[in-house]
Amino acid sequence: MKKRWLGVLLGMSALLAFPMSAFADDGATNLELQAGINSVFVYLAVILVFFMQAGFVLLEAGSVRMKNAGHVAGKTVLTLGISIVVFWAVGFGLGFGNGNGIIGQTGFFLSGDEMAGSFDSLSGSDVPLTVKFLFQLSFAAISLAIAAGGMAERAKLSVYIIFGALFMIVIYPVVAHWVWGGGWLAQLGMQDYAGSTVVHLTGATAALVATFLLKPRLGKYNKDGKPNVIPGHNQVYTVLGVIILLIGWFGFNPGSTLSGVDGFFGYVSLTTNIAAAAGAIAALAISWMVFGKGDIPSMLNGVLAALVAITGSCAFVEPWAALVIGAVAGTIAFLAGQWLERAGLDDPIYAVSVHGIAGVWGAVSTGLFATPELVEKTGVGQAGLFYGGGLHQLGVQVLGVVGSFAFVLVISFIILGAMKAIMGLRVTEEEEMMGLDISEHGTYGYPEQMKLLTDAEAKSGSRTPPIN
Amino acid sequence: MKKRWLGVLLGMSALLAFPMSAFADDGATNLELQAGINSVFVYLAVILVFFMQAGFVLLEAGSVRMKNAGHVAGKTVLTLGISIVVFWAVGFGLGFGNGNGIIGQTGFFLSGDEMAGSFDSLSGSDVPLTVKFLFQLSFAAISLAIAAGGMAERAKLSVYIIFGALFMIVIYPVVAHWVWGGGWLAQLGMQDYAGSTVVHLTGATAALVATFLLKPRLGKYNKDGKPNVIPGHNQVYTVLGVIILLIGWFGFNPGSTLSGVDGFFGYVSLTTNIAAAAGAIAALAISWMVFGKGDIPSMLNGVLAALVAITGSCAFVEPWAALVIGAVAGTIAFLAGQWLERAGLDDPIYAVSVHGIAGVWGAVSTGLFATPELVEKTGVGQAGLFYGGGLHQLGVQVLGVVGSFAFVLVISFIILGAMKAIMGLRVTEEEEMMGLDISEHGTYGYPEQMKLLTDAEAKSGSRTPPIN
Amino acid sequence: MKKRWLGVLLGMSALLAFPMSAFADDGATNLELQAGINSVFVYLAVILVFFMQAGFVLLEAGSVRMKNAGHVAGKTVLTLGISIVVFWAVGFGLGFGNGNGIIGQTGFFLSGDEMAGSFDSLSGSDVPLTVKFLFQLSFAAISLAIAAGGMAERAKLSVYIIFGALFMIVIYPVVAHWVWGGGWLAQLGMQDYAGSTVVHLTGATAALVATFLLKPRLGKYNKDGKPNVIPGHNQVYTVLGVIILLIGWFGFNPGSTLSGVDGFFGYVSLTTNIAAAAGAIAALAISWMVFGKGDIPSMLNGVLAALVAITGSCAFVEPWAALVIGAVAGTIAFLAGQWLERAGLDDPIYAVSVHGIAGVWGAVSTGLFATPELVEKTGVGQAGLFYGGGLHQLGVQVLGVVGSFAFVLVISFIILGAMKAIMGLRVTEEEEMMGLDISEHGTYGYPEQMKLLTDAEAKSGSRTPPIN
Repeated sequence: MKKRWLGVLLGMSALLAFPMSAFADDGATNLELQAGINSVFVYLAVILVFFMQAGFVLLEAGSVRMKNAGHVAGKTVLTLGISIVVFWAVGFGLGFGNGNGIIGQTGFFLSGDEMAGSFDSLSGSDVPLTVKFLFQLSFAAISLAIAAGGMAERAKLSVYIIFGALFMIVIYPVVAHWVWGGGWLAQLGMQDYAGSTVVHLTGATAALVATFLLKPRLGKYNKDGKPNVIPGHNQVYTVLGVIILLIGWFGFNPGSTLSGVDGFFGYVSLTTNIAAAAGAIAALAISWMVFGKGDIPSMLNGVLAALVAITGSCAFVEPWAALVIGAVAGTIAFLAGQWLERAGLDDPIYAVSVHGIAGVWGAVSTGLFATPELVEKTGVGQAGLFYGGGLHQLGVQVLGVVGSFAFVLVISFIILGAMKAIMGLRVTEEEEMMGLDISEHGTYGYPEQMKLLTDAEAKSGSRTPPIN
Repeated sequence: MKKRWLGVLLGMSALLAFPMSAFADDGATNLELQAGINSVFVYLAVILVFFMQAGFVLLEAGSVRMKNAGHVAGKTVLTLGISIVVFWAVGFGLGFGNGNGIIGQTGFFLSGDEMAGSFDSLSGSDVPLTVKFLFQLSFAAISLAIAAGGMAERAKLSVYIIFGALFMIVIYPVVAHWVWGGGWLAQLGMQDYAGSTVVHLTGATAALVATFLLKPRLGKYNKDGKPNVIPGHNQVYTVLGVIILLIGWFGFNPGSTLSGVDGFFGYVSLTTNIAAAAGAIAALAISWMVFGKGDIPSMLNGVLAALVAITGSCAFVEPWAALVIGAVAGTIAFLAGQWLERAGLDDPIYAVSVHGIAGVWGAVSTGLFATPELVEKTGVGQAGLFYGGGLHQLGVQVLGVVGSFAFVLVISFIILGAMKAIMGLRVTEEEEMMGLDISEHGTYGYPEQMKLLTDAEAKSGSRTPPIN
Repeated sequence: MKKRWLGVLLGMSALLAFPMSAFADDGATNLELQAGINSVFVYLAVILVFFMQAGFVLLEAGSVRMKNAGHVAGKTVLTLGISIVVFWAVGFGLGFGNGNGIIGQTGFFLSGDEMAGSFDSLSGSDVPLTVKFLFQLSFAAISLAIAAGGMAERAKLSVYIIFGALFMIVIYPVVAHWVWGGGWLAQLGMQDYAGSTVVHLTGATAALVATFLLKPRLGKYNKDGKPNVIPGHNQVYTVLGVIILLIGWFGFNPGSTLSGVDGFFGYVSLTTNIAAAAGAIAALAISWMVFGKGDIPSMLNGVLAALVAITGSCAFVEPWAALVIGAVAGTIAFLAGQWLERAGLDDPIYAVSVHGIAGVWGAVSTGLFATPELVEKTGVGQAGLFYGGGLHQLGVQVLGVVGSFAFVLVISFIILGAMKAIMGLRVTEEEEMMGLDISEHGTYGYPEQMKLLTDAEAKSGSRTPPIN
């Protein structure tokens, strides 16, 4: 209201006071400046989300044994490369091109003409199409990194290549289109601000299928079905990885505002960080109660689970609600991870509990905690149950989760099932024993340290797995 | 060509065409655009300063032995989580809320209403309150990370939790309020641009008390009182940590301008980097002279000491003075660190010399080198001794240092002394021997490598500490 | 002066047109806002390119043996420190000061008066001089890091110090002036957007000379001249290093637009990432064909080679061409690396093939793929052969490459040759056997792990090099 009056006053002053040198000289209008600020801001987010690949390298490599560390780290670069090429060629168009409620149909192999300096006509944002493309690409690549996490320490290198390409064509873009590309869930008003469902649940569901089809690692379960702990080889890596992922979330969620002019990104960052902190503390506490010691991997998973949950709700909820959402996420991810492990699911980096269970909780949480003011501000959906919104939004959220989960589950099962039948998913037992660094790449990631380890194993006559 | 015509058209339209579409359409005035640029810039600084937690993880973990590395890395995530929650709930209000010369009294548990899009009324800055909160939080968390560094390899996990929370309530916010929140030192015109005193000296003073009360690590001193070197286990980590900290300082100091529109942040970044470089070279040189070899840990400490010193003076001094400040900082931190070690202070990551001694030097240096032009530009205090300002500013700086040091010393002593009496600060000897990864968390951070190490120790009959 | 008049005009208009609150209050015109956006954007690029030093630390340290890792990591901090001081004192003025076609002659020891808030008169950009200085410094430091890479595992620490300082005075600034500082290659219209030639080829040429003069590492070649593989000790480091370098390239190339307002930086980032992805895939494929396994170090070098190549051409070519340029770069860097190794060049981090050969390809590629539209947009040179530009631009590119290469080759040979004659470049055989951590610094980078390794070697009676 106030702004409108200011505009009128300025307009009048413009009539009276010529020359308007500020306009004539600088070649950049306020509209262009605003687009510039937003572009730089979103580009910052792009960089942060790409940087999360380094976080996944460290988290995954640190969570596996030394004999697989080079492989696990290296395949992340490979899946990133595949993500970039395939998403540029096909994925972006399917996800964000103009189309129907199911899929996009324009924007393939984006060329220079379409890209160079052109402004996005796909949404209300004034961010250039190239930057928007990079932003969506960075999210898609995270989803694939999560999916790939479930395959660690036993899948062939070729599986990552083939499944990675297909994930970028027939899985991720479809869910992204449904929720963010104007698809049927968008039309229903599903609230998934930065992708608890689109990015995390999608990746985790694919990881679940992979984990199920690949079967557990050798030595993970005793004959009586009891799980053994196969500890990761480097907690400094996992800690560092989680901090890098936390840093990445400074772009992941706030970047989704697509605006640096509106100070709202700061609010989104605040709820995100409060949730992460609550997740760390809650998960450390629950692990302390269950194990008798404060367990570091559990605490780290608590941070990530909280970040995954708040990803969907960051822009819709108040700080105190973020605290609750994060604490609940840290707790249920811990309990679910323990339960899934006992139930026979060998998920080396806890992709299913941290990104899947917490992703579902994140989607549901907006149906509970979304405030009327923030719903109005973001323009998506309705207020949640605890703010007088009734069960409507909660229902939409549940529908979105169920629909996305079912779709990814089925398609992943078809793809990975077919791959299993045709080419096999898993290395041989002998290869798994010697480690995927050797079997898939021919060299150890840690040649000097592995020599010490294999010499010691040769002497003692025993061989990992598992080390405990 | 096209743009020139656009300008002419806009000029004409300004005369003829009411309403002025540039204003009417874009919804962002120059004031809003300026706030947007400043917000994005400060947010960039927030991210960089948060990223410094990764630097501390690497620096600290690399500086300890393998048996403590997981613990040292993991507890940093924990103290960060505590920082976020406690600073949001209480610390920010105490430090930066409206209050008196001693403490702030508003702004606790900042809610959505206060946060969402609202603009800061606490200072002249147009950065949103959420971003300002995150900025101050990131600094507070660094101060706690420094304090926690002094406890490495012997303090219980619970100490970090309890002391961390109290540090965020009764220590850091008080000093921050005095210097940056309108308190008595602010009123005296103390110059501490980005926190040589507020952040670094405060953290280091708490570390000093912790180090004193915890006593040295087993094996650090021989019976005759001579210190042994207990080398850190990974210099690649420490180097990487220092580079990440250097990167973080691209936000730490320049971010404190709170403005991306004014190019002044580039100047602040320049003096910061010149000082860091001088610190590296000076510390390497002095270590070469003393040890006969260029010592890498000493060089790294020189970089950090220089950064700590220039933190206070970065906006007040000329490039040549930054060179001097950095070189002096690198040198005195080395000499002080050697002297403190011989005097019986076992400070595993040199928190006291690098952040404390260099922090004092940083505060004092503005009293010497502050130029009239830059003092006028920043609007804080007066010129230094070497620029005709006499002893006034030097006196203020010394008073600020002494006051802050004394306060933190006393309060830290009361808190940690009480904790020592009630619950004990230190793990048992047996626990310290086996390492805090096992004692505090139940698993090694490096299970495979520690197995090799403990097997080798069992064979040779000897046990670290110390390894040399 | 001009600004003052602008202020008067605005003030007068404010008098006539009351209230002009937006103008009168905010103190930032559209010109100033635009400069602010551009400054923040370029500063973001500065940070990213500085962060690449961390990437080189990890890439280099991971590519050498454990006994040299601390040294290799630590010397990077040292060369960075030298870069900052020398480039501030001399290098920037020589490269970018006003001068003739060969060298710059102003801007040495930039002082506060010149720096504080002043705007660059060296180019059309509105980025402050301090930020432009930091940007150019970050590039220069990368070039030196590349040069230093070729010396790994055998050069004395003092060589890095002396050669580093000289490189920053008589080598890098000269080539930078020729191409980017208004020198003779700039006048000819050479296209080198972000430094395939200036940064990468220059560094690689110096590395080539160093590698040649230093001779191969002990154990690298058998008596019959066949090379042994001396694997790096940590592939997680090398992977992480390459991802950090990739992240750095989000600033390296797009930052060279010097504008955040024009969305063009997004386009440059897009071509950069497409090339990187193609390089990863192509290099993995060729290594798979040659070795029978997908080799991780080869894939990583493919990413880097592609990034190096697209550095020169990123702003001149279409996405499909970027894909071709990256794939070719990944392939030829692999083949050239293999060939150089067989030919007797022991280049531990493949500086010559990855930064040199791919750098040449990058320079040449614009002569082939530059489009008329993008040439017009950037205002540099002419269209390439495949876009109807004939052989003109290709000729300029070849001339630029040959001229730069010849200059750096000769000067490096003179400097390093003289150093070899006067002080010697290489540690003794005994020192090389025990590792440069001990010989140059007196302590191992990994004391605990090296104790295990040396104990095992003592028992088996053999000693590395090489481990295979």
